[in-house]
Amino acid sequence: MNIYNVSEKAGVSIATVSRVLNGNTNVSDKTRKKVLDVIEEFGYTPNVFARGLGLNTMKTIGIMCTDSSDLYLANAVYYTERALRNHGYDSILCCTGNSLEYKKKSLSLLLSKRVDAIIITGSKFLETKASDNTYLIEAAKEVPLVLINGYLDAPNIYCTLCDDFNAINEVTSRLIEQGRRNILYLYTSTSYSGLQKKDGYLHALSKHNIPVNSEYIYECPKNIYDAKELLSSLYEQGLRFDAVVTSDDALAAGALKFSLANKLNVPGDISIVGYNNSILATCSEPELTSIDTKVEALCISAVNTLMQVFDNTNAPKRTTISAEIIYRNTMIK
Amino acid sequence: MNIYNVSEKAGVSIATVSRVLNGNTNVSDKTRKKVLDVIEEFGYTPNVFARGLGLNTMKTIGIMCTDSSDLYLANAVYYTERALRNHGYDSILCCTGNSLEYKKKSLSLLLSKRVDAIIITGSKFLETKASDNTYLIEAAKEVPLVLINGYLDAPNIYCTLCDDFNAINEVTSRLIEQGRRNILYLYTSTSYSGLQKKDGYLHALSKHNIPVNSEYIYECPKNIYDAKELLSSLYEQGLRFDAVVTSDDALAAGALKFSLANKLNVPGDISIVGYNNSILATCSEPELTSIDTKVEALCISAVNTLMQVFDNTNAPKRTTISAEIIYRNTMIK
Repeated sequence: MNIYNVSEKAGVSIATVSRVLNGNTNVSDKTRKKVLDVIEEFGYTPNVFARGLGLNTMKTIGIMCTDSSDLYLANAVYYTERALRNHGYDSILCCTGNSLEYKKKSLSLLLSKRVDAIIITGSKFLETKASDNTYLIEAAKEVPLVLINGYLDAPNIYCTLCDDFNAINEVTSRLIEQGRRNILYLYTSTSYSGLQKKDGYLHALSKHNIPVNSEYIYECPKNIYDAKELLSSLYEQGLRFDAVVTSDDALAAGALKFSLANKLNVPGDISIVGYNNSILATCSEPELTSIDTKVEALCISAVNTLMQVFDNTNAPKRTTISAEIIYRNTMIK
Repeated sequence: MNIYNVSEKAGVSIATVSRVLNGNTNVSDKTRKKVLDVIEEFGYTPNVFARGLGLNTMKTIGIMCTDSSDLYLANAVYYTERALRNHGYDSILCCTGNSLEYKKKSLSLLLSKRVDAIIITGSKFLETKASDNTYLIEAAKEVPLVLINGYLDAPNIYCTLCDDFNAINEVTSRLIEQGRRNILYLYTSTSYSGLQKKDGYLHALSKHNIPVNSEYIYECPKNIYDAKELLSSLYEQGLRFDAVVTSDDALAAGALKFSLANKLNVPGDISIVGYNNSILATCSEPELTSIDTKVEALCISAVNTLMQVFDNTNAPKRTTISAEIIYRNTMIK
C-alpha cells in the first residue's frame, strides 16, 4: 500500500493525497475525508507523511552500500551517518555485496524495518540494464530514495553527485598541457561514476586532438598489487607511458610501486594521479597527487536534500559537487 | 519483559523457562502451562526463543561499531556481515561514535528493530568504569550479545578475542633477542584490546630484565602525520630509539615517514612494527612488518558461536584466536 494506491482508491490525484497528508488547507472537507477514510481502511501511514499527520515516526534512515570495507564507501557511510545524527535521525546500514538479488533483498529488509527514507551510497546500485533498476523505482513509491554518486531519473528519487567527468577531464588536460602524450588510464569499474570518469579521460584526449588508443585503457581490480602487476606486464611487452591516470588511489599506489621497482623517476619520467584522496595517497612515498571527491560535502548535501523532502520544500532532484585536484608529489601543478 | 521476568512471574527457574521455550520434554505439563500463560499474558516472544516455539523470526542480527570508516572496524563489519549472510541471516549496522549516550541509544534502536542478537565489533564499547557497562548486561537479558575483540563476563554475553597480549609480547621479545634495547611503544587507545597490547610490551621488557621507561611509551592519535610529528619532536629533544612497536599500522606508517625524513635506515638503524596488517602495511615503502589479527577468522568464529547459541548447544563464552607476525621489510625475522 503506497501513496499511488491511496490516490487510486480514493479517486483523487497524488497531489491531493499529498496535500491532505501535509495538512494543506486547500482541500475540501469532503475530499479530505475520502482520503483519510482510505488511509484508515488500509492502515496506510507511511513514515514520510506521518509527520504531516502529527504521528511519530521512528526517525530512522536506511543506508545501503555494496561493501563497507571499501575505503570510499566506508567514509561515505561514516559522513552520512554523522550528518543524519546531527539532524536527529538514527540510521541502519545494509551491506549488500554486488549481486542484484541481495541488493533487492536488502532494500526490502530496510523497508520492513519501517525506515523513513533510504540513502544509497556509491553508484554500484545502478545496473547497466535499465529494467534491473525497477526495484529502486518501486521502493521510491514507498519512501524517498537519495542516491550518493549515482543517477536515476524517477519520481521520489534524489541524486547528489561528484562531477567525476570534469575531474578526470581537467587532470588529463593538465597532463597534456605539460607535454604528456602517452597517458595510461586505469579504472576499476564501469558503474555510473566509473563511466563518467572514463568519459572525462576520452574527452580530454579528443579536445587536444590526441587519438584514443585502446592499448592505453585498462580495467583492473581495486588492488595495489594487481595494478603493479598489470603495469609491469605492459612494460615488459614494450608499452611506454609518461603518465598514469587512475579511478582509484589503490591503482595509483600500485603504479607508484611499479615505477619504483623499474627505477622510473616520479614525476620526472612518469606522472601518477590517484582518485578519492584516500589514506593511501598520504601513506604512499612519494605522496600521491589525487582527486578529492568531496565525499563529506556530498553526504551532507544528500542529507540536506532529504530534510527538504521531509519538509516538503522543493528539494533538488540532482545536485552536482565539483571535485578538486590535490597536488602532491606524483604530478606537478 | 525478558526471560528473567517470565521466570519470576511464573515462579520457576530461568532454566525451566528455557526448557519450555525450547520444547524440552523434561518439564511437567503443569509447569509448561504456567510458563506459557505468563508468556501469552505479556506477549513475550523474544526472537532467540521464538525458533523453539516454532515462530518465525526476522532472521536479522544487529551489528554495532563505533566508526565504520576505521580500517579495522570496516573489515570486521564486512566479514561479520558476510558470515551472517552465509548462515541465512540479514544484518543491520549501527555506527555509534564514542559517546556512551549514543552507544546506549543505538543499542535500544537495534532492540526496537527486533533483531535476534547483537554483535559488537571492537573493544571501544567496554567502558573503563564497570557500571557504565550495565547497558550491555541489561541488553543481554533480551538477546544474546557477541563481542568481537572485547571481553565482559555476564550471562548471555559471548566473546571472541584476538590474543593481542601475546602478539605484542612475541614481537617485542623478538626485537630484544635481535639486540634492540630502546624500543618505543606507540598506542592509540586504552580500550580493552589497547590495554592487552600495552601489557604485552611491558611483559616482554620485564621478562628480559629491561627496565620500563615511561619516556618510551606514548599515546598518539591514529594518524600517519601525528605519529610522524610525535617522533620528530621526540627525536629533536634528543630521545634515541632503535625500534618502534605500534598498536596500529597508521602509527607505523608515520614512524616510517619520520625515519625516511631523518635518513634513518629501516630496518638497519630502526625496526618498525605495525598492527592489524591493513592496506597501509602494503602501501608503505618499504612495506611494513605487521601483526595479522585474523579479523576474518575472528568474525567467522563469532558468528559460529552465535549459531551455537541459537541451536542451544553449549556455546563457548570466550574464544581466543592467535595473531600472526607478518614479516616484511621494516623488521627482519
